[in-house]
Amino acid sequence: MPTESFGDQLKSFSRSGRALLQRYVPFVDWERTGREPAADRIVTLAEVLLSVKGEASGLAIAADLLEAYRSLDGEGQLRFFVALSSRHDPEPAHLKQMCDAYSAQPSAETLRRLMRASEPPRRELFRRLNMLPGATSQLVTMRSHLLAHLKQHPELARVDDDLRELLEAWFNRGFLELRRLTWSSPADILERIIRYEAVHSIHDWVDLRGRLDPPDRRCFAFFHPAMPDEPLIFVEVALTADMPDRIEDILARDRAALDIDRARCAVFYSISNCQAGLQGISFGNFLIKQVVADLSRELIQLDRFVTLSPVPGLMRYLTSVASQQGQGEGSHLSPGDVEQLARPGWWDDPERAAHLADRVLPEAVRYFLEHKRSDGKPADPVARFHLGNGARLERINWLGDRSPGGLRQSGGVMVNYLYDLAEIEENHEAYAGGGVVRTGKPVRAMARAAEGRQRQPRRSRKRAMSERPQRRADLRS
Amino acid sequence: MPTESFGDQLKSFSRSGRALLQRYVPFVDWERTGREPAADRIVTLAEVLLSVKGEASGLAIAADLLEAYRSLDGEGQLRFFVALSSRHDPEPAHLKQMCDAYSAQPSAETLRRLMRASEPPRRELFRRLNMLPGATSQLVTMRSHLLAHLKQHPELARVDDDLRELLEAWFNRGFLELRRLTWSSPADILERIIRYEAVHSIHDWVDLRGRLDPPDRRCFAFFHPAMPDEPLIFVEVALTADMPDRIEDILARDRAALDIDRARCAVFYSISNCQAGLQGISFGNFLIKQVVADLSRELIQLDRFVTLSPVPGLMRYLTSVASQQGQGEGSHLSPGDVEQLARPGWWDDPERAAHLADRVLPEAVRYFLEHKRSDGKPADPVARFHLGNGARLERINWLGDRSPGGLRQSGGVMVNYLYDLAEIEENHEAYAGGGVVRTGKPVRAMARAAEGRQRQPRRSRKRAMSERPQRRADLRS
Amino acid sequence: MPTESFGDQLKSFSRSGRALLQRYVPFVDWERTGREPAADRIVTLAEVLLSVKGEASGLAIAADLLEAYRSLDGEGQLRFFVALSSRHDPEPAHLKQMCDAYSAQPSAETLRRLMRASEPPRRELFRRLNMLPGATSQLVTMRSHLLAHLKQHPELARVDDDLRELLEAWFNRGFLELRRLTWSSPADILERIIRYEAVHSIHDWVDLRGRLDPPDRRCFAFFHPAMPDEPLIFVEVALTADMPDRIEDILARDRAALDIDRARCAVFYSISNCQAGLQGISFGNFLIKQVVADLSRELIQLDRFVTLSPVPGLMRYLTSVASQQGQGEGSHLSPGDVEQLARPGWWDDPERAAHLADRVLPEAVRYFLEHKRSDGKPADPVARFHLGNGARLERINWLGDRSPGGLRQSGGVMVNYLYDLAEIEENHEAYAGGGVVRTGKPVRAMARAAEGRQRQPRRSRKRAMSERPQRRADLRS
Amino acid sequence: MPTESFGDQLKSFSRSGRALLQRYVPFVDWERTGREPAADRIVTLAEVLLSVKGEASGLAIAADLLEAYRSLDGEGQLRFFVALSSRHDPEPAHLKQMCDAYSAQPSAETLRRLMRASEPPRRELFRRLNMLPGATSQLVTMRSHLLAHLKQHPELARVDDDLRELLEAWFNRGFLELRRLTWSSPADILERIIRYEAVHSIHDWVDLRGRLDPPDRRCFAFFHPAMPDEPLIFVEVALTADMPDRIEDILARDRAALDIDRARCAVFYSISNCQAGLQGISFGNFLIKQVVADLSRELIQLDRFVTLSPVPGLMRYLTSVASQQGQGEGSHLSPGDVEQLARPGWWDDPERAAHLADRVLPEAVRYFLEHKRSDGKPADPVARFHLGNGARLERINWLGDRSPGGLRQSGGVMVNYLYDLAEIEENHEAYAGGGVVRTGKPVRAMARAAEGRQRQPRRSRKRAMSERPQRRADLRS
Repeated sequence: MPTESFGDQLKSFSRSGRALLQRYVPFVDWERTGREPAADRIVTLAEVLLSVKGEASGLAIAADLLEAYRSLDGEGQLRFFVALSSRHDPEPAHLKQMCDAYSAQPSAETLRRLMRASEPPRRELFRRLNMLPGATSQLVTMRSHLLAHLKQHPELARVDDDLRELLEAWFNRGFLELRRLTWSSPADILERIIRYEAVHSIHDWVDLRGRLDPPDRRCFAFFHPAMPDEPLIFVEVALTADMPDRIEDILARDRAALDIDRARCAVFYSISNCQAGLQGISFGNFLIKQVVADLSRELIQLDRFVTLSPVPGLMRYLTSVASQQGQGEGSHLSPGDVEQLARPGWWDDPERAAHLADRVLPEAVRYFLEHKRSDGKPADPVARFHLGNGARLERINWLGDRSPGGLRQSGGVMVNYLYDLAEIEENHEAYAGGGVVRTGKPVRAMARAAEGRQRQPRRSRKRAMSERPQRRADLRS
Repeated sequence: MPTESFGDQLKSFSRSGRALLQRYVPFVDWERTGREPAADRIVTLAEVLLSVKGEASGLAIAADLLEAYRSLDGEGQLRFFVALSSRHDPEPAHLKQMCDAYSAQPSAETLRRLMRASEPPRRELFRRLNMLPGATSQLVTMRSHLLAHLKQHPELARVDDDLRELLEAWFNRGFLELRRLTWSSPADILERIIRYEAVHSIHDWVDLRGRLDPPDRRCFAFFHPAMPDEPLIFVEVALTADMPDRIEDILARDRAALDIDRARCAVFYSISNCQAGLQGISFGNFLIKQVVADLSRELIQLDRFVTLSPVPGLMRYLTSVASQQGQGEGSHLSPGDVEQLARPGWWDDPERAAHLADRVLPEAVRYFLEHKRSDGKPADPVARFHLGNGARLERINWLGDRSPGGLRQSGGVMVNYLYDLAEIEENHEAYAGGGVVRTGKPVRAMARAAEGRQRQPRRSRKRAMSERPQRRADLRS
Repeated sequence: MPTESFGDQLKSFSRSGRALLQRYVPFVDWERTGREPAADRIVTLAEVLLSVKGEASGLAIAADLLEAYRSLDGEGQLRFFVALSSRHDPEPAHLKQMCDAYSAQPSAETLRRLMRASEPPRRELFRRLNMLPGATSQLVTMRSHLLAHLKQHPELARVDDDLRELLEAWFNRGFLELRRLTWSSPADILERIIRYEAVHSIHDWVDLRGRLDPPDRRCFAFFHPAMPDEPLIFVEVALTADMPDRIEDILARDRAALDIDRARCAVFYSISNCQAGLQGISFGNFLIKQVVADLSRELIQLDRFVTLSPVPGLMRYLTSVASQQGQGEGSHLSPGDVEQLARPGWWDDPERAAHLADRVLPEAVRYFLEHKRSDGKPADPVARFHLGNGARLERINWLGDRSPGGLRQSGGVMVNYLYDLAEIEENHEAYAGGGVVRTGKPVRAMARAAEGRQRQPRRSRKRAMSERPQRRADLRS
Repeated sequence: MPTESFGDQLKSFSRSGRALLQRYVPFVDWERTGREPAADRIVTLAEVLLSVKGEASGLAIAADLLEAYRSLDGEGQLRFFVALSSRHDPEPAHLKQMCDAYSAQPSAETLRRLMRASEPPRRELFRRLNMLPGATSQLVTMRSHLLAHLKQHPELARVDDDLRELLEAWFNRGFLELRRLTWSSPADILERIIRYEAVHSIHDWVDLRGRLDPPDRRCFAFFHPAMPDEPLIFVEVALTADMPDRIEDILARDRAALDIDRARCAVFYSISNCQAGLQGISFGNFLIKQVVADLSRELIQLDRFVTLSPVPGLMRYLTSVASQQGQGEGSHLSPGDVEQLARPGWWDDPERAAHLADRVLPEAVRYFLEHKRSDGKPADPVARFHLGNGARLERINWLGDRSPGGLRQSGGVMVNYLYDLAEIEENHEAYAGGGVVRTGKPVRAMARAAEGRQRQPRRSRKRAMSERPQRRADLRS
């Protein structure tokens, strides 16, 4: 194993490397530095790493820095990030000078100098850290820490900008490897799948096996060559005869597997990102499209690729709608209804269930088609993800998820987004350009029914629902 | 194979993608564009690729662009590079504005805008091209073309700056995989080894087998995961009982393999870069050190790691020395001597051989120790490589390479550079900082002998030869 | 996957194959046969399989036969085995004729005919079944059924003789592959490890991980290429500083892993055969020796290779000794003592514990050194296995296993057998030839102490304990 | 690598093992034996190997024996085989006794004894040799030597019977692995393909590449897990638009590859056995059928699977026919015609070519359909192979191979055998049972034409040519 041996090599560099530090980096009192707390030492090490010329010294210092980093608590991490933020910005005066020189004569040389002047030195720091074998995954972890601090300390955004940009280069889509995970996959990777599953928890290894091993189940993940045992994102797929409307049917432990020849529909019922430190560097988009393409080729009998997705923002929306509409009018959703919805068991009372469906479903339609953020995109994050990928909103399923979590977040509602390779690009452009939400027949029928109940249909709603939006609409937002 | 299937997927995107182009990129007359010569079309495609939002459109256009690129001749390539150079520079006025804003208030946001303003748009273009699976190797090829045009068109340096910086990020050392190549390695990779060998040509498969298969021979190469069949750089190693002084002994076809238990010395007798498009992105440094570390672990009996290297600039130097020194003085090197040296066979005449050794060797010592470039580094490129890695100049070997090429370039002289893990870091810093050439005993003895012949030893020479240079010397340059 | 495709191919053969059966095997009424119960049909299929010439017909019939076999219950299996036993013996008259011919003229041809005449036709039947890809593992399963019937039906031994001999050829030691199992091994294989563990149950995946993942734990298994996912036998190894005397220390869930550099001892604490159908075809012998050899090479600091083994026959022996010795004499083991021993908790009463140790340990020594079967080998099966492999009986550990099972079978006693590569061959020959049990110092000391308590030491005991037995003793049995 | 480590282990066994030999095998004077020539020592070692009980001693002796064997010349090998032949036959008197006991009471026990008595002890010897890792391939080599001696020494057939039977068990079809060989396969394996190609020589690596790398070329081989680098048999396949009639078109170096979508026909143009020591253990049958099945699945556009085969016995047959028919009659083949046929260039003279075709082709038809061996099978070995596999004789191609070898053996004629999965089983049974040669339309047309020229058609010919033979015919032989 090269990596291992390189580690050994590194240690020997490290020893001689440190001895050299005193000699070649005399402006630092290395003995004192060694005694400092990690949170101080690491800042010094960062300065030094940017100044040494020797590659081996560089690797030794990088190793020391990352070791020091691993020993930091949240407080220490913050101090390090703040140091990176405050000390490593481009120097305005120098930058201005370079900018003037470039404006005066925009040659390759003045451009090169300008770019050097405008790049925050911490980028080079991250690059040098990443020279160390195995460092990539530590930088991903470092960014997860940084993101956690970002809310309280928005000035760290500049550090995150740099780190994210580098991670984007390193996690280039062309470098990712799609692997199918099966019951024959390495146990350590499967253990991570259990840990990272974020949509429908995997309770134990028997549960896991039920999602991987039956012939009508699939799981795919992206990996990066520098982190070969760490899935970046994975999707769980059920092959079914029809488009499913309830997650219970998918997850039931005692279900019989479908004869694969009878499968017509591939259902993406769970997608989980695994690496908090790669937030904002999107792989899900690629993952779903590639899995659609791969499954189409392998199983030619498949003709529908859909999700069965939660609606994580629905209950918050319903709560707000109910509180606005007041409790007076009978045909409106009341806070009591919403409260009811979150409590399991109401479906056993048919009258109550009908009442709730009557009140909730029209609002669910509105939630998707009319309730937009300031940027014109839907409020629901899962909707934004799939619509942004070019899927269409195919169907809204009442009583799709009766689990406590499903009730609390989504009021038990689940949604099918449908991926049709022939239209995803057009859907995407329409959505990206104009926030247009493409819908399937069942949703359109539901929307018409909802509208029928209202006296004054609003114009905007019509447009949002239209199957083939007018050109102008597309360019609207 | 995911990649393959993704290719299929791409084609279908591509078809719908192009249909969409007319709709979503209406400012281009796509029908006319399709009829244009590739060298014109590619420039349009580059503009469009930077403007589309949809990922699939992006991939479709990237695929079209790279396909158009492959059909370009040198003339067409140049037009494309010039377009990249002239149209994609940062806009000075806008940049100035951002620079002022940042100077006024250096916030995360102003910094982000500044950086966006200072980055040439062609970088984003290259990034988008690289999203396409398999594009990395095409961008490497593209850079090899760019480098070929660079000499005649120095203004293209700005394009190269961008492409090189991206390739540096993508070819991060932590992503490289070291593989040992053996006679059991895939034939297509071995065929490339034959093709890329740049130091001592591999004549055929029998010759290749002789360099891989015997127990006292090794070959190692770096690979990148996005180009799994393409070696980036490789080194050939001979295990020997003693430090060798003649390449013939290494390459002889009928030689008997050494019993591996008797090996004490690992000889790096050939290092070849494989990818012209990765010029300036150095892997050799890492490769040698890692191979030294790996071999040390595997074969604990090894105690010396040396090269047997050509001296490619020696003959040019000797020619220039001879022409300066004139033909008068008997003790000096004459143009006739140099001419003689290049013609095979003189070694059969002992007197002549002694005469030549007498004249040439002292100059060879000077070539290494005194003949420096303006930056204080030795004129010899191979010397710069190994000394820059932290090796020392151990021995100069008379009659080391009697092949026509060896005579023509190096006057038959070969050199051993020695890698001692315990000192490479110090050597490197001394060399990087002060241009100090560390030497081994045999070279020092030769230098003393050479000096003895001269009446007025120069001071600088003494210093350059010193085994442990004074501290001041180290900091000099 | 070749195998898969071959299966497809087979099906198509099968269809045409069956159509042909009626034509080429006209002596069978195929339509009627198809309606027969599997237990009848399978007998017919066996006859036919031995008579057809075509390879594809052969494969089709073999597939039918194995399918029919899988549907059999125990009763049906027995009918099949009885048919194999009664109908497929060599024909005595013909055999006698061949024997006479060979005696008269022992040529290659008469020998060949003799051998053909003496081979039961069911061997060829098994061979033809094994031509079918995937059949090997089904034949192993078939033998496990056969063995289960063998006790009640000893006449089936002739069928088992044939099947075992073929399996011995197919499971040739040279074909086995040793693999280390780790926490990165395929989950389906690890699931089988959980299932097959026969010595110290693996409770769940966390328990399993604790045996594979820590740096001081190892697990190795043999596999056969025709059953690549099915371990044949595996051994679990703990690396420890000292030779352990309690299984608790090994299995404790909350233990800290040992720094591997401090390991001196490799402990084989569990060996489990996985395939009941390969009973009598021993791999354990090879497995331990190869693991000893591999670990010696990998971890040169190791200097002792021992087991920590149960003594499964001890309690039965103690019961019998106690009932023979009567309850009168105070210094003897009483039935009450034995009863006590099996009930957890007595160790909390120091007096009682001392009393039991005093009574039990001398008998434990006798159990190993004097209590022999009629063939002169020890009565304990685990002892026979390790001594037969050339290990020596190093130490008997009081209170080595306080689990209910450990008390019930072994009275809580555990034993270390020690594998010393330098002496295993000599130990083996001494044991195989003369039933000599080689012992380590701790056992010899215990034996002397035990003997001191007795008035009339028996001669045989002396001999059995001797470290270096006399030559005569070796040749005795 | 287990194997390697096991080798190390073996050496240490070996040392102690040999020391033990004197002690445990005292009837041999080991010191003298060590000084004996290998050809004597090996016979002693064989006896000892059969008598030792210890496994490690056994491995040590097996290793010694195989080492001694490798040093033997042909003479020494013969002495070893003769010793195996003469000393290791079953003992007639003992055998007779066992036979009587079995006849008197055919119990499992008497049967077991009988079988033991009838098995030549050398079988157990070969089994014990094969316990040694890596021995399988040496036993294959040993059999190739044995076969070479067999012609001169037919009494060795009994040794070959035993070795072949064991190899048949070890090279069970279910253990073989089909691999596609490509230009990315390991060079050492490809080198063996060059060496083993027996039909159309591979001249160099460029030639090899031309057979592996183009998209319309395939190569498949069987491997055995105990000899992972040694192909057992391989087939080269060309994908073509039509059934080819000339080998030149297949082998041409400068040909353009066919677009794979236009391929309709897979041509097996070369099948070579690699291991002389596995003669008589047929894999070709399986190989072709599996490749047909695999290619059918991968390339659904393929609808014909044919060979392009030489007719190695044709020229011998023509010579004999010509000499019988005399030189008188004009319409008959003359010795001069045959002589002519073997000399390249006659095809340039159209008249001569027509004359030869006229004389030769009818005889070629007769060669396949009427010229049978005593067992009713065709005289041509290639015909026997493919017809025995269930192929039909599809077409006879005039001027199919103009190479010197092709003319010398086959008179330039080549043949297409066609594999139709739907009929191979029926063809096989018809051929195996009655020697019936199934033919394709082109051959039948040619046969009719040939018959038209003859005055007295023979009955047998008619039958042999019939497409659907009568049932009676099938059962005839």
